[in-house]
Amino acid sequence: MADTTSDLAPVDFRTEPARYRHWKLTFDGPVATLAMDVREDAGLRPGYELKLNSYDLGVDIELYDAVQRLRFEHPEVGAVIVTSGKERIFCAGANIRMLGQSSHGFKVNFCKFTNETRNALEEASAESRQTYLCMVNGPCAGGGYELALATEWIVMADDGNTAVSLPEVPLLAVLPGTGGLTRLVDKRRVRRDRADFFCTTEEGVKGRRAVEWGLVDEVVPRSRLEEAVKQRARELAAKSDRPRHGKGIVLTPLERTLDPDRVTYAYVTCAIDRRRGLAEITVAGPPSAPPADAAGVGAAGAGFWPLALARELDDLILHLRTNEPQIGVWVLRTTGRADLVEAYDRLLLDHAGDWLVREVRLYLKRTFKRIDVSSRSVFALIEPGSCFAGTLLELALAADRSFMLDGTRPDDPKRPATIRLTAANFGAYPMINGLTRLASRFLAEPGRVDDLKGRTGQDLDAAAAAAAGLVTFTPDEIDWEDEVRLALEARTAFSPDALTGMEASLRFGGPETLETKIFGRLSAWQNWIFQRPNAVGPKGALQLYGTGERSDFDRRRA
Amino acid sequence: MADTTSDLAPVDFRTEPARYRHWKLTFDGPVATLAMDVREDAGLRPGYELKLNSYDLGVDIELYDAVQRLRFEHPEVGAVIVTSGKERIFCAGANIRMLGQSSHGFKVNFCKFTNETRNALEEASAESRQTYLCMVNGPCAGGGYELALATEWIVMADDGNTAVSLPEVPLLAVLPGTGGLTRLVDKRRVRRDRADFFCTTEEGVKGRRAVEWGLVDEVVPRSRLEEAVKQRARELAAKSDRPRHGKGIVLTPLERTLDPDRVTYAYVTCAIDRRRGLAEITVAGPPSAPPADAAGVGAAGAGFWPLALARELDDLILHLRTNEPQIGVWVLRTTGRADLVEAYDRLLLDHAGDWLVREVRLYLKRTFKRIDVSSRSVFALIEPGSCFAGTLLELALAADRSFMLDGTRPDDPKRPATIRLTAANFGAYPMINGLTRLASRFLAEPGRVDDLKGRTGQDLDAAAAAAAGLVTFTPDEIDWEDEVRLALEARTAFSPDALTGMEASLRFGGPETLETKIFGRLSAWQNWIFQRPNAVGPKGALQLYGTGERSDFDRRRA
Repeated sequence: MADTTSDLAPVDFRTEPARYRHWKLTFDGPVATLAMDVREDAGLRPGYELKLNSYDLGVDIELYDAVQRLRFEHPEVGAVIVTSGKERIFCAGANIRMLGQSSHGFKVNFCKFTNETRNALEEASAESRQTYLCMVNGPCAGGGYELALATEWIVMADDGNTAVSLPEVPLLAVLPGTGGLTRLVDKRRVRRDRADFFCTTEEGVKGRRAVEWGLVDEVVPRSRLEEAVKQRARELAAKSDRPRHGKGIVLTPLERTLDPDRVTYAYVTCAIDRRRGLAEITVAGPPSAPPADAAGVGAAGAGFWPLALARELDDLILHLRTNEPQIGVWVLRTTGRADLVEAYDRLLLDHAGDWLVREVRLYLKRTFKRIDVSSRSVFALIEPGSCFAGTLLELALAADRSFMLDGTRPDDPKRPATIRLTAANFGAYPMINGLTRLASRFLAEPGRVDDLKGRTGQDLDAAAAAAAGLVTFTPDEIDWEDEVRLALEARTAFSPDALTGMEASLRFGGPETLETKIFGRLSAWQNWIFQRPNAVGPKGALQLYGTGERSDFDRRRA
Repeated sequence: MADTTSDLAPVDFRTEPARYRHWKLTFDGPVATLAMDVREDAGLRPGYELKLNSYDLGVDIELYDAVQRLRFEHPEVGAVIVTSGKERIFCAGANIRMLGQSSHGFKVNFCKFTNETRNALEEASAESRQTYLCMVNGPCAGGGYELALATEWIVMADDGNTAVSLPEVPLLAVLPGTGGLTRLVDKRRVRRDRADFFCTTEEGVKGRRAVEWGLVDEVVPRSRLEEAVKQRARELAAKSDRPRHGKGIVLTPLERTLDPDRVTYAYVTCAIDRRRGLAEITVAGPPSAPPADAAGVGAAGAGFWPLALARELDDLILHLRTNEPQIGVWVLRTTGRADLVEAYDRLLLDHAGDWLVREVRLYLKRTFKRIDVSSRSVFALIEPGSCFAGTLLELALAADRSFMLDGTRPDDPKRPATIRLTAANFGAYPMINGLTRLASRFLAEPGRVDDLKGRTGQDLDAAAAAAAGLVTFTPDEIDWEDEVRLALEARTAFSPDALTGMEASLRFGGPETLETKIFGRLSAWQNWIFQRPNAVGPKGALQLYGTGERSDFDRRRA
């Protein structure tokens, strides 16, 4: 099966509205409309046509971009209507031929990105106060309904033609794995026996029953559909705290240099060591002091260091996940001045109520969450000259393991490494389990987090950091080289699959959320099914879809 | 790979201490000791030797039996020490050659059963007040440490030889999937970076570091090990509310007739329709009124209807799961008198504090939970003459879907079917998510459960049951045959894998627990890995283990 990384150009996640091929973004005061109108012949890869508003990764990259721009460039927008730009169909879901021809790894990575985008829709509704709602103006199947489920209010046309459905199990022998099953029973809390019936019924459910069962929120005659949705959108927008007359910032094109073994941005660089299977990522702290206030943040725009950092890291993570699957370990380093990071963190906290500052924080939050759910081992190296402070300390806390050099290096004038907690570590960047990385780390001793608050702003050397439980190992310069090298060598020698399952299990102790259920449970089941001959074998349903041939299932239950 | 169901005798889960080959059960007043002493040459299947106290399904069947008998036959026991009967090894975990030669389905089913048994150990500690502790008297690896993790207090010998370890990832390219990863971070709340190191370190951790990291509770010099554990066990036993001088009941041999297409017990029968892929299970209510009090329950012993029911259903579920993997749908029916079930439920409630009554309820609870986590579709058929009341109504509430015939059948004098709630439906049998089946069903409307309490004891006909949300569909006799037949035909035509993933995702909305995390997340990842060539391919680690050959991993991360 096509491993899209070997024979084709790398996937680029950077785009902008002028280049969209599949979405139309329009504005009506506080209400934006995001209309899906997929170009059949504009698939990201050759070999399939995007019929019936079905989507591939390229379609979702544009959706992701649109959601980001709505947040940053349109403070005046308080509600977003997701709908179809086509006459007779809302969306048929992910393109089946695309899935059928993709490698296992590509499918899994595609689903992860689409999941993150849908989670970001929900986060925009809840935290950016830009509420998404959905106008289902035609048949809405599979991933189409999963997109609807990620909005907060679903209005469906009441005609003979329009229904919502999750036909994955009966038609394709896979799951509604982009959050569908989880959102049915956990977000919309559809009764489990009804959900069971619904998920095994190709034709789906329409009309009054769809409302009664909680599958949609309203059904409205076709003639009144648009006005009913607009009305609801205006009501939701009116409740938003976003500034109606605020001025957005422009997400200017992200500058990046892509060399064969190096990716370079303004603040983030990544050197790829193919022999060792490592990506060595270095993140630079701010070059100077932050602006004085929220107006200064607006003036800095896309150049505002925390925002630039979020965009660069975000793009790098997506690039590495999609285009560098063989690079199994990400090594994180930082450089810079802790006092400047702390000053930025203070600015973000002092102006937390400003819509733009909020967006910047949320973007960093989402980006750190991407690290948590990446199927890569993450090691942080804390050395002299590093800058693991506040927001940047989250990188070390997100790592599976951290090494901090205790003391100095011979012939290196740099002072011993220290780390520094700031207020940002105590609530700004919750993980998908809803806890801060510190709270997740100290599940056994919750009191420790309170104690650490008292040490905010202090420079902790290796001994202090180890005693505080903030780093894993603290070799001195005699042991450092060997210890780090051996740990990395061991890591890259293990089975990538076993590491993925292990990391997904160890990273999220404590409470569960919709997101942990999606990434930890639903995705794991889907990945399993994506390996099973009943789905992907030569007689599997995903392979035979559209051929008229019937699948020949191995009937043994596992 | 060997599908153990086709060419070998069915696995029998019934055993008794006199027939144990792998465990020794001894008693010292309120403290019992369960010593693992596996016979190398007594594997359940040919093809492997159970070296180093490694285990297979046969070893675990005996453990399960011992845990059950400790609860019912030994009210005087308040603490149970799990240890090894061998000199130089505690336990090396699940037997690798056994895993390597097993089919995917057998591996998955084996892990499910071992998981349930470990969960039952924890339930015995928490709810039967028979606290398990572990004396680690030699190397304790993989599944051996997972067994220790299922106890409430782990004491390890402090010698040069004894360590705890989870070497699955580095050695075998699979996960510590019998709860190991989950219990590390969620039960013992080991810091995630330490857990990460521990799970990638073949040799494990011993001595003081094991205590400091929370991997064990105490380390004690070898010379004092036994006495230290005994002392701790006596202290724990002293806190138990079990009757020191109570009289246990005997779990007499379970009578069962196994015909090619039928399994018959006293109250439970199962007809296997191989052509249609169905197991038609009928459960009979009590034949007469219950005893008057707890003493009567003791006198009835293993013949007490709820206990007999639990034992029979339990055995049938294990039999069907292990020996009938091709039978993908279980159809549940009941017969009997609702008033008698209600009387039994009242007895169980009125004497809930009695140790034996408590054990009976807990056994039913565990058995219903087995249904919830079975990878089979479950349909309940509620027809005239049925007895879905109270404890037996849980079967319909555990079903993925229920059909209730509205009205009577022509030429059938039986009155229309009714269902009846009893107090047992409101707390006696929580699911693995910690909620009752009613609360799980009505996540969207929690108030409904309170309303239903007011209808306890009423006979609800089809219309009333549907209005109350307790059944899925209520066809009348004209539609019944077709509707049920078509639903069953459709179900058995779907991909078994997709159904398994779907059911595991829809059955447990709401809160998460250690158990839902184990069955929903950890098991799903393990199942995925159990399919991956890096583990089970010809060059996979599980296949090559012990050959001296090195695995050749596909390095792409998925």
